[in-house]
Amino acid sequence: MSLKVGIIGTGMIGQDHIRRLTKVLSGVEVVGVTDIDQARAAAAAPEVAEVFATPTALISSEKVQAVVICSWGPAHEEQLLTCIAAGKPVFCEKPLVTSEAAALRVMEAEVAFGRRLVQVGFMRRFDADYRRLKAVIDSGRLGAPLLFHSVHRNASVPEGLYTSEMPLNDTLVHDADIARWLLSDEVTGVEVRVPRRSSRGGELRDPIFVLLHMASGVLVDVEISVNIAYGYDIRGEVSCETGVAALPNRPATLISDSNGIRQAIPEDWRERFIEAYDQEFREWLVAAAAGTATGPSTWDGYAATLVADAALRAVSGGFESINLIAKPSLYGPPTAMAAE
Amino acid sequence: MSLKVGIIGTGMIGQDHIRRLTKVLSGVEVVGVTDIDQARAAAAAPEVAEVFATPTALISSEKVQAVVICSWGPAHEEQLLTCIAAGKPVFCEKPLVTSEAAALRVMEAEVAFGRRLVQVGFMRRFDADYRRLKAVIDSGRLGAPLLFHSVHRNASVPEGLYTSEMPLNDTLVHDADIARWLLSDEVTGVEVRVPRRSSRGGELRDPIFVLLHMASGVLVDVEISVNIAYGYDIRGEVSCETGVAALPNRPATLISDSNGIRQAIPEDWRERFIEAYDQEFREWLVAAAAGTATGPSTWDGYAATLVADAALRAVSGGFESINLIAKPSLYGPPTAMAAE
Amino acid sequence: MSLKVGIIGTGMIGQDHIRRLTKVLSGVEVVGVTDIDQARAAAAAPEVAEVFATPTALISSEKVQAVVICSWGPAHEEQLLTCIAAGKPVFCEKPLVTSEAAALRVMEAEVAFGRRLVQVGFMRRFDADYRRLKAVIDSGRLGAPLLFHSVHRNASVPEGLYTSEMPLNDTLVHDADIARWLLSDEVTGVEVRVPRRSSRGGELRDPIFVLLHMASGVLVDVEISVNIAYGYDIRGEVSCETGVAALPNRPATLISDSNGIRQAIPEDWRERFIEAYDQEFREWLVAAAAGTATGPSTWDGYAATLVADAALRAVSGGFESINLIAKPSLYGPPTAMAAE
Amino acid sequence: MSLKVGIIGTGMIGQDHIRRLTKVLSGVEVVGVTDIDQARAAAAAPEVAEVFATPTALISSEKVQAVVICSWGPAHEEQLLTCIAAGKPVFCEKPLVTSEAAALRVMEAEVAFGRRLVQVGFMRRFDADYRRLKAVIDSGRLGAPLLFHSVHRNASVPEGLYTSEMPLNDTLVHDADIARWLLSDEVTGVEVRVPRRSSRGGELRDPIFVLLHMASGVLVDVEISVNIAYGYDIRGEVSCETGVAALPNRPATLISDSNGIRQAIPEDWRERFIEAYDQEFREWLVAAAAGTATGPSTWDGYAATLVADAALRAVSGGFESINLIAKPSLYGPPTAMAAE
Repeated sequence: MSLKVGIIGTGMIGQDHIRRLTKVLSGVEVVGVTDIDQARAAAAAPEVAEVFATPTALISSEKVQAVVICSWGPAHEEQLLTCIAAGKPVFCEKPLVTSEAAALRVMEAEVAFGRRLVQVGFMRRFDADYRRLKAVIDSGRLGAPLLFHSVHRNASVPEGLYTSEMPLNDTLVHDADIARWLLSDEVTGVEVRVPRRSSRGGELRDPIFVLLHMASGVLVDVEISVNIAYGYDIRGEVSCETGVAALPNRPATLISDSNGIRQAIPEDWRERFIEAYDQEFREWLVAAAAGTATGPSTWDGYAATLVADAALRAVSGGFESINLIAKPSLYGPPTAMAAE
Repeated sequence: MSLKVGIIGTGMIGQDHIRRLTKVLSGVEVVGVTDIDQARAAAAAPEVAEVFATPTALISSEKVQAVVICSWGPAHEEQLLTCIAAGKPVFCEKPLVTSEAAALRVMEAEVAFGRRLVQVGFMRRFDADYRRLKAVIDSGRLGAPLLFHSVHRNASVPEGLYTSEMPLNDTLVHDADIARWLLSDEVTGVEVRVPRRSSRGGELRDPIFVLLHMASGVLVDVEISVNIAYGYDIRGEVSCETGVAALPNRPATLISDSNGIRQAIPEDWRERFIEAYDQEFREWLVAAAAGTATGPSTWDGYAATLVADAALRAVSGGFESINLIAKPSLYGPPTAMAAE
Repeated sequence: MSLKVGIIGTGMIGQDHIRRLTKVLSGVEVVGVTDIDQARAAAAAPEVAEVFATPTALISSEKVQAVVICSWGPAHEEQLLTCIAAGKPVFCEKPLVTSEAAALRVMEAEVAFGRRLVQVGFMRRFDADYRRLKAVIDSGRLGAPLLFHSVHRNASVPEGLYTSEMPLNDTLVHDADIARWLLSDEVTGVEVRVPRRSSRGGELRDPIFVLLHMASGVLVDVEISVNIAYGYDIRGEVSCETGVAALPNRPATLISDSNGIRQAIPEDWRERFIEAYDQEFREWLVAAAAGTATGPSTWDGYAATLVADAALRAVSGGFESINLIAKPSLYGPPTAMAAE
Repeated sequence: MSLKVGIIGTGMIGQDHIRRLTKVLSGVEVVGVTDIDQARAAAAAPEVAEVFATPTALISSEKVQAVVICSWGPAHEEQLLTCIAAGKPVFCEKPLVTSEAAALRVMEAEVAFGRRLVQVGFMRRFDADYRRLKAVIDSGRLGAPLLFHSVHRNASVPEGLYTSEMPLNDTLVHDADIARWLLSDEVTGVEVRVPRRSSRGGELRDPIFVLLHMASGVLVDVEISVNIAYGYDIRGEVSCETGVAALPNRPATLISDSNGIRQAIPEDWRERFIEAYDQEFREWLVAAAAGTATGPSTWDGYAATLVADAALRAVSGGFESINLIAKPSLYGPPTAMAAE
C-alpha cells in the first residue's frame, strides 16, 4: 500500500521532491499538488494527481494522507498548523518558520496533539558521511568531543538575491543543526567575526566566521565562504580527548595528470547531498505511513530559528546568548550535556 | 503502474533481491516466487506473491511480466530459454551459464527473438566509482588507455567450499567483465601466474596473478587475493598516454588516533557494492517495463564464460587464446578496438 | 673554511644542536661551549672544543666567530646584547626574550649596530611543507588569503611542568609566527576562548582556542590541544578568494590492515621538524659566515613577545589589541598589509 | 678530519655530486677531479682541488683517500679494479659494469682484497619512503610478502637518445634492485610483455610490463612508462598475507581549486630523490672514512646486470632464468628466501 502524498509549493525544490517521490522512491504516490501559481502546479503535477486550489483544500482532502511543504518560509506556520489540526504527518522544508513566536505556536499545537507530526528538512542528518562521523563520536572511543570545526563553502551565490544576512540566517542553520545533532547538544551562545572581505562578492559580507558555544562547553567554529569559486565544499572535524574524526573527501576518480594527483569537488549542494535527500524522504515515508514523524523535529526547527536570530544580532561583535524553553518531552529527554 | 516480477531461487541472493524489490525500489511488485525448496520459497515470498511449483510455471504465468533468476548456475540455461520463448525480460545472476555451448544456445535464441531480453548480474558496472572512472577514460582527455591494474581482495572465503579453481572461474569474471566494459574492448588471451602461497588458506592457490590481453593491445594485470584478512578491497587503475585514473578509497570517516590517520575498509562485497546492486535493478526495471533489457548482455555473459575457461587452462603456464564468434548486431557494433 | 661556533647552554636542545653542527652539517666547527653546569658543558663538548667559564668569556673569545644561545629565556637579553656589542652573529632559541622592554632593548642595540646579527629559532619557517604552502599563497593564484586555520596538537605535555599559561605564552608563538610569515602580515589583536576541558590533563586548561586578528583583516583561528594522546599533529589551511591551500599529511607508509587504510602520525616535534631544524642551521651558517643574519629576526621575536602577552591577557574573554612600534628599516619594509 | 675524495667524470651527475660533497655534506673535501674532457674537469673542480690527467693518476694519488666514479659505464670496470688494487673505497654510479663477465672480475678482485670497497649508486635504498616501507615488511606484522607492484613512470625521455632497450637495461634496474632489497630476495626469472604502444613516443616500445620471479616465489610486476607526460611517478605496493603496504604520495601542498583537491607530482628524478642522493653519500662517507663500504654492493651490481641481460632476452616473449653464482660471504649470508 502506497502512502498518498500532497505537495504544497511546486517551485524548484517542490518539483525535485515530486521527481524523487514518483521516480526514485517506493511506497508513495503523489495524489495532489498546489501552488500560488496554479499553472505551475498543473505543469508539475503527475498525471494522476489533483491540482488543489489552496493549501487548506489539499491538506483537508481525504485523498491526502501526508503533506510536503515547499512553499516560502512565511507561509509555513499556517500550513503546519493546518496539518497538525488535521492530524496529518508533514515534511516541511527549512526554515520551519521565520520567528521564534511562530516556532513556539507550532510546537504548542504539536505538543497538544500529543504525537510528532512534523519533520524539518535538515537533510545533512541523512548523509552517510555525517552519519558515520556521528557513530564514531557516539561510540565514545575517542573520548568526549571538545571542538568541532565546520566548513561551509559555496562556489557562488545568486548575485543580488543573496544578501549579507543570509550567511547567518540561511546558510549557518545547516552547520548549527548538524552541530546540535552530531554532539547531542544545544547552542547556548553565538559570536560572529567578519574577516577580510573577498573581492569576488562585491559588497557581500563574505567570508564570515562564527563561534557556537554549546551547552557542554564544546566550541564550534564555522567558516562560511559563499563565493569561493572552486566548488561546494563541506568539511567537518571533531577534536575529541584522544583523537579526531573528520568527514572524508567525496568519492571521485583519482586522476594523475598535469594538475597533480587529484579528485574533483562537487559543484553544488544538489550533487553533494543527492543521496541524503533520497534517504531523508525514505525515512519520512516510513514514519508518515505510521502516522507520525521522526528525524529533525519542530524542536530542532525552533532551535535553528533562535541560532539564526542570535547570529544576526552577534554580527555587531558581542556574545549573544540563546535561551531555549524547557524541552517538551515529546521531543525526547532534555539534552544530557546541558545538565552538566 | 508497477512491473510484476517473479523470482526463481530464494537462497541468500534471491532473498536479498526480494528485499530490494519490495523495500527499496519503486515501480515494481514481486508477484511470484519459486524454489526447489518449496518451504524456503514460501518463507521468502512477500504476502501478496504466489508460490509457484516450478520455474516454468512461474515464467509462463500471466501474472509475471519479468523474471529474476537466482537459481544455481547449471539451471540457468533452461530457465533463460523459457523466458526468451515467452518473450519476457529476465535478469540473470552470474554466471549466465556454465559452458560456451550453453551460452551460444541462449544467444542464438535471443537473436532469433530479435530483441534483447537478458541482463546479466555484473553489478560493478552500476557502481558510481567505476562509472566515473569510465567517464574519465571515455572522455579521451588522458589519451588512449594502455594498462589496467585491477586488484581484487577478499578478507576470507568459505573454507572447504571455495576451491583453487574459483579465483579463476568465479572471482576473476568480475575483473574481466569490468575490463571489457571500462575499455570497450574484448579479451583475446589469458595468462596466469601462481605466486608464493599465503599460509592463511591451507592448500588453496592464493594469491593468483592474471594477465588479460585485450584486442586493442591494452594489458590488464589482475591480483586476486582471497584470504587477505584486512577487508574487501577492490582497486583499479588505468594508465593512459598522458595520465592515470584510479578508483578512490571508499568514503569513510577520517580518524586520527593511535593507529594513525585512517579510513575503514569495507568488510565484504555486500558493504562495498550495496548501492551498485540497487542501481543495477533500478535500471533493469526501466528496461524490463519497456519489454527489453539493457546493461550487461548475453554477449557479455558469453565472453565471461570464455575468459573463465581460458583462465583455468592457463594455470599450467601457457598463453591461452580466446576466439569469440562474430558479434551479433543485437549486441551492438563490433568492438571498435578489435578492428585496429 | 669552517665557521667557528660557540654554544651557550648544553641542555637537551643545546646537545641536539651540537650533534647537528658536528655530525650533520658542513662548513662549521664547534670550538667552544659553556653552561651554568660546567660538568654538563664538559660532557657535551666536542673533543676539540674549549669549555668556557661564562657566556661572556665564550662570546668575547677570538676563537668564536658566531654564537648559538640555548640557555633559558631570562638569560637571553644579556647574552644577545653581548653578542651585538661584539659584532658576532648569533642564533637564539625561542623565546628571544621574556618581556617587551627587553625585546626593545635588543632591537635598539642591533639597529644601532646597523646590521642584522640575530636569528630567532622559529624552525617552522624552514619546514618544506610550510615553505611550499607559502609559495602557493604568495603566487597569488588563489587570490588573497582571507582565513587561516592552524591546528597545534601535542600527544602530551610534561605533567606538573606544563602550566595553563604555556599554551598561550609558549605553544602559541609557533602558530603566531607562522601566521605572520605565511601571510606577510602582523597580528593586531588576540582573543582566547576556553572550550570544554579534556579530562586527560587534570586541571590544565586544555584545549584552548585562539583568534588572531591580522592587520590585513585575515582572521586566524588556532586550536591548541596539548594532551590529545594520538600524536603530534600540526595542520594548517589557508582559505583564499578562489581556493584553499593546506599542509599535507606527513609522508608515511600507506598501510592497509585491520585498522583500515592508514598512515602513521609523528610522535613529537623532534620527529615532525627534524629536517626543518637542519635547514634552519644550514641557512644560519651561510648568513653567519657572511657576518650577518637572515630568517626570523629580532623584530619577529619582538612581535611574538607581544602576541604572548596579549594572549595571556585575553584569556579573561576580551579583545586584546597589539600595538607595535614603527618597524625599523633594518627589518625590511613596513608590512604591506598593514598599510591598507 | 675530512675525508679527501677524488671525482672521476665531471658530466652532469659528476657536477651534481661535487656540489653535494662541497655544499651540502660535512666531513668531506673534494681534492681531485678528472675527466676525458680536461677543460670540463677544470671548470667543475673546486678551488682547492687538483685536476688529474687520468683516472689512474687520480686513484693512485696520495691525496685521494676515496673515489667517486661518474664516468660512462664501459669505463667502470678498469677504474673499479684500479681502486680495489689501491685499496681505496669507491662509490660507483650505476651501472656497475656493462657485462656479467666484467661484474665477476670486479667481484673476484674485491673478494681477493678481503674487504668491501665498492658501493653502487642505487639511491632508492636511501629514500625515506622506501626505508619506512621496508621496515613495515621486515617487521613481519603483515605476514610474508606475496606480491610487489612497482610503477616507474617518467614524464618524458630524451628523444633519439633513449632507445627501446633502455626501459629494460637502464630503467628497470632500479625496480629490480629495490625489489631485491625490499624483499631480501633474488630475481630468478624475468618475463616481459609489450602492451599497446603510447602514441607519444614515436617508435619507442613504451610502456613495457615486466614480471620478476623471486627466489621466494614472490611475484613482482613492473609498469615502466617513460613518456607519460604528467610527471615522474614512482609507486610501490607490497601485498602480504594479512595486509598491504605502499609508498605514499610525495609531500606537497594540498590545494583545492577548480582542478579539484590535489597535490603536485614531482617533475623528475632529481626532485623526487634529492634527499635520497644526499643520504646515500652521507652513509658512503661514514663507511669510506672507515676504509670500507656499506649499502648496495658489487653483488647487487652483478645481480642487476643479470636482470638487465635477462630482460633484454625476455622481450621476445619467453621466460628467462637467472642463475647467480654462489654468493661470496663477503656480501653477506646466502639469501634466506632462496633456501626455502
